[in-house]
Parts: sequence; structure tokens; C-alpha cells
Amino acid sequence: MTPNLDFAKNGGLVPAVVQDHQSGEVLMLAYLNPESWKLTLETGIAHYWSRSRAKLWKKGEQSGNVQEVREVRVDCDADTVLLRVRQVGGAACHTGYRSCFHRRLEGGGLVTDGVRVFDPGQVYGGSR
Amino acid sequence: MTPNLDFAKNGGLVPAVVQDHQSGEVLMLAYLNPESWKLTLETGIAHYWSRSRAKLWKKGEQSGNVQEVREVRVDCDADTVLLRVRQVGGAACHTGYRSCFHRRLEGGGLVTDGVRVFDPGQVYGGSR
Repeated sequence: MTPNLDFAKNGGLVPAVVQDHQSGEVLMLAYLNPESWKLTLETGIAHYWSRSRAKLWKKGEQSGNVQEVREVRVDCDADTVLLRVRQVGGAACHTGYRSCFHRRLEGGGLVTDGVRVFDPGQVYGGSR
Repeated sequence: MTPNLDFAKNGGLVPAVVQDHQSGEVLMLAYLNPESWKLTLETGIAHYWSRSRAKLWKKGEQSGNVQEVREVRVDCDADTVLLRVRQVGGAACHTGYRSCFHRRLEGGGLVTDGVRVFDPGQVYGGSR
């Protein structure tokens, strides 16, 4: 059985907060459509809907940095999901940082203080 | 200066992941519009846009459980924000639980395993 989420509220997509299951670091936010939600639950590997490419997206399909889902949590309104994952490769962000939230606001500007794990030019062949 | 976020991508609203600044627990997801983003930065107290009530929402305005913002992080695409907060009163969820993500998926169903901090009937006078 796939638990129902409220996909209607946000135009067919439910945001998924993705958190490292051990450190608690928030790695990224992605979006689920009904198909990617089902696939994520069936396979235990995070699948999302890519808004920019308008297609189903198995996270890490190109880089190999897949996300093994260790725990799934659903919020009070069933319109947001929290995935606690093991991030293979150690980096969730396509820029090579461990987290997409690698920039901190300070004095009106953004300071990059995240950990960079890989060089995206090598992983994606300069396509990004 | 208020750093620019990509409000256009999601119909004028940017999701904000809210995390306890000490424990790392993810407390909730809420939405920012330009006005609430500005107010959050100016006051250091989390303000959001309530989609259900279609109005500016100072989190905790009724319950007193405001969120003191200790750190603001912006993701790689500037379309999502991470607020690391001190949750006054210890509960972020209007149901009285510490986190809105107080339910875990298990065996196709949802199991409530979160910590309940207050009785919503007493705090909101039974209005919810």
C-alpha cells in the first residue's frame, strides 16, 4: 500500500526534505509526483520529479550518488515528506557539495561554508 | 540588503525547511513570500505566508511558540531556504508535537512516534 499524500495542494507535487540519517544535516529539497513516490517506496532508493527537466529523476542516476532511504516521515497535513537517507558518495548537490544548503547568510550576503566532496566537471563531464 | 530568492519558480512562494538549531531535528516546512522573507530577516523571528489562510503569518502569533532564527541558509538554486531556529515552547506543530513530521512510515501505514509537548485544545481554545 502506498500512503496517500496531498498532491493537489501544490500542483501535483509534494516537497521532500532530504536529511542525512546519521548526522541530521539537511541535504536538499526535491519534489515527488505520485509515480516517484511509489518508486521511492518500492525500491528504497530516492526518486523525484525534476521540475527543470520535467521528467522522473532517479537521484544519482548520472553521478552514482544515489540516496538509500532509511526512514520516511510524513507531516501533519500529509503535504510534505521527510526522507532520512544514506547519501552514497557523500554529496547530494550537483555542485559537488555535501548539501545543497552550502551557503550561509551573513551580513546581507551569502558565504559558502559547506563541504565540497567532488568536482562536478569530472563527474558530469562539464555538462553543467 | 535582502538577498534575492527565486520566488518565480513556485508561484511566488519559496519553501523554507525549518530545523532545530541544536538537535538538527526537522520541525516543519513552511512558505515564504517576499514580504515574509524580508520580515524574517529584519526581525530575526520567522514569518511565513500561510497558504490555507492566504495571509502573512508570524509563526507562534497565537500559541506564543515563535521561532528565533539562528541561521539562514540558501540552497544552490536560491529557490529553497533552510532556517535553523530556536523553537520557543519546544513545539512547532499546531497539533502539539515538537515536529510536524511526527509520523513514521512503517509497513504501509503511519506510526506516530513524535514527542507531544502541548495539548492543542488548551492552547488554541478548541478552535482547531
